[in-house]
Amino acid sequence: MTDHDRSEPWSRTTKRRQNLSHSNSTTSEIAQIVELDGLTAHLGYLIRRTQIWIFQDFIRTLATVDIRPAQYSVLTVIDANPGLTQMSLSKALGIERARLVHLLDGLESRRFLERRSSNSDRRSHALHLTAKGRSALADIRALAQEHEQHVIERVGRKNRQQLLRLLACFASG
Amino acid sequence: MTDHDRSEPWSRTTKRRQNLSHSNSTTSEIAQIVELDGLTAHLGYLIRRTQIWIFQDFIRTLATVDIRPAQYSVLTVIDANPGLTQMSLSKALGIERARLVHLLDGLESRRFLERRSSNSDRRSHALHLTAKGRSALADIRALAQEHEQHVIERVGRKNRQQLLRLLACFASG
Repeated sequence: MTDHDRSEPWSRTTKRRQNLSHSNSTTSEIAQIVELDGLTAHLGYLIRRTQIWIFQDFIRTLATVDIRPAQYSVLTVIDANPGLTQMSLSKALGIERARLVHLLDGLESRRFLERRSSNSDRRSHALHLTAKGRSALADIRALAQEHEQHVIERVGRKNRQQLLRLLACFASG
Repeated sequence: MTDHDRSEPWSRTTKRRQNLSHSNSTTSEIAQIVELDGLTAHLGYLIRRTQIWIFQDFIRTLATVDIRPAQYSVLTVIDANPGLTQMSLSKALGIERARLVHLLDGLESRRFLERRSSNSDRRSHALHLTAKGRSALADIRALAQEHEQHVIERVGRKNRQQLLRLLACFASG
């Protein structure tokens, strides 16, 4: 058993030294300590764990408005770029076309946005938030800020700033 | 247009100020700058971008052995805990049962591992790497280290250490 804090696998909700007990377990497995050595020192594992923590908190915090991170991104970008086409949005957010269509269908059926035929190009649709969508986005933004406050409480304000700085290199393509 | 480095959405492979041009675009959209303002300052977005970068590099680096991050975790934990049950592994890695069964099926069909009936409890299977699995894991580990080297090249050795330290708080449950 090593003492590395980083002896963790690339997966979810794991504690490195975990007591396992469940009804089907054999005696030897009750309170078994699962050795995760060998998964040490992989940044990817901690990143994945962090992502799951953050997304779960986001989804929980925005549960009353039923908005997930990708939906939040879509609404925010359309609000900032009225008339954007689906293709431009797909590229800007790097969301695959099929998944984006599904996302937009859901938000359109909630009457948060509408696809209007483009005058100059009938093949493409211009995306606009509805009045209802803009109004919802105000509430959604307030809750997204509440979520970000949870992140700050978890990691600390200065540490969060440092993380934003250190992680920027991965976001530059 | 703000100057925040953090003006990014929670999604993939995006550049904050992105020139868009494609065949279907209207004139106004050629070289359109998509404003991502309002998605600023969300740690979740940078975490997601980082996760995608790291997973893509892992998958690319380990392409010759055809191993993905979750498979790597599974092989590593079984190697360190021979005889582990599926349920214990599921809990230790936080992988849902159905997904884990699928993962194990794939690795078993490649003869990297085997499920042996437990003597004490016939309902549970004890997981063991085969000789072939252990041998493959040696190669896999070497490539996983190569991947980690790419992470170091991207972010810097000291910055990576700092990230591991800063992110630890999200992995503690």
